[in-house]
Amino acid sequence: MSEKDISQAVISRLPRYFRYLGDLKEKGVERISSQELSDIMKVTASQIRQDFNNFGGFGQQGYGYNVTYLYDEISKILGIDKQHSLVIIGAGHLGQAIAGYTNFTRRGFVFKGAFDCNPNLYGTKIRDVEVRPVDEMEEFVKKNGIEIAVLTIPKEQAVPMAHKLVGCGIKAIWNFAHVDLDVPNNIQVENVHLSDSLMKLSYNINRYENPNK
Amino acid sequence: MSEKDISQAVISRLPRYFRYLGDLKEKGVERISSQELSDIMKVTASQIRQDFNNFGGFGQQGYGYNVTYLYDEISKILGIDKQHSLVIIGAGHLGQAIAGYTNFTRRGFVFKGAFDCNPNLYGTKIRDVEVRPVDEMEEFVKKNGIEIAVLTIPKEQAVPMAHKLVGCGIKAIWNFAHVDLDVPNNIQVENVHLSDSLMKLSYNINRYENPNK
Repeated sequence: MSEKDISQAVISRLPRYFRYLGDLKEKGVERISSQELSDIMKVTASQIRQDFNNFGGFGQQGYGYNVTYLYDEISKILGIDKQHSLVIIGAGHLGQAIAGYTNFTRRGFVFKGAFDCNPNLYGTKIRDVEVRPVDEMEEFVKKNGIEIAVLTIPKEQAVPMAHKLVGCGIKAIWNFAHVDLDVPNNIQVENVHLSDSLMKLSYNINRYENPNK
Repeated sequence: MSEKDISQAVISRLPRYFRYLGDLKEKGVERISSQELSDIMKVTASQIRQDFNNFGGFGQQGYGYNVTYLYDEISKILGIDKQHSLVIIGAGHLGQAIAGYTNFTRRGFVFKGAFDCNPNLYGTKIRDVEVRPVDEMEEFVKKNGIEIAVLTIPKEQAVPMAHKLVGCGIKAIWNFAHVDLDVPNNIQVENVHLSDSLMKLSYNINRYENPNK
């Protein structure tokens, strides 16, 4: 079936299903009904069924979902049954934190290179990978056919860097810089704007304390 | 007017407006029409007007928005015209990255304490703040009336830590642990699930490459 029209809202929920199913799998649960899944995930059973129907269902009426099958199917939909190579541009604390998540490796994201413009960091190792001068990035990305670039650099540098990356044939940018990137439509971009997230938290504190203002 | 019914989708967009208005303000732009704002932000002018109407408008027909006024009003709505005290629990790379963002200080988020369970980190300074043993967290949070806790600890520790924080009178949790927290409704939670974000990126790569699968 075609998944072309699946909304990004549904897509955004898939990793959460995947996470809960992984936990259930680890606990040895073999089968789960949408109602049980609804109880632990705190979303309605009808939402779960609707979300899964986008991908053709996965379950049998009155029988529930096979946890391992569902986990594997969602993993295929998310494309994490394959490996993706990744470089980090900006080897500061945030870049190092991301490069250090062994969990990402387990999901098939293979950390291949780290680049920075700070000479003090050249040669520093993050896991098994040496930090290189950012000038070597283009050659490295082309030569190794890197798919994903993680941008953990200041916003002023992020926009020209994104253009360079596009020129190197990158497929996707995971952008932590506090700026919107202007790249062609064939480049997938996922933004993590931490400031925006913190402001949303601040809004909700304020709103809770001043409900009628 | 009451803002009670404003959706989280609208709220999610406010920090982005705030960011663009801040840039315009820095460039000395005094006035902007919804169409001009639409062009630079790549959302429709009608979306902008609808979003702003949730808060009573801000503009005059045919006259455009006063950039500084709009910036200040959105800052008030976001609650960043006030100061919020913040502690970081988990002083690894991610915690240190967050504590190091001077930009957050500019927005009124005042970094007061950092805690970890790794004795090697005790006494290490992040900006002017010493990392303390996590056992001292409860006393510190109560004594200093801390509002926001940033959780940059593994998921196994995050759930019991959240319960402790609630007991200390925290108002909000900015959660980076890869788990959903179960806290009372009066506690504001904003999740940053990095794995989920990376999987969404992977989905979009996969979908772009296999559009009809």
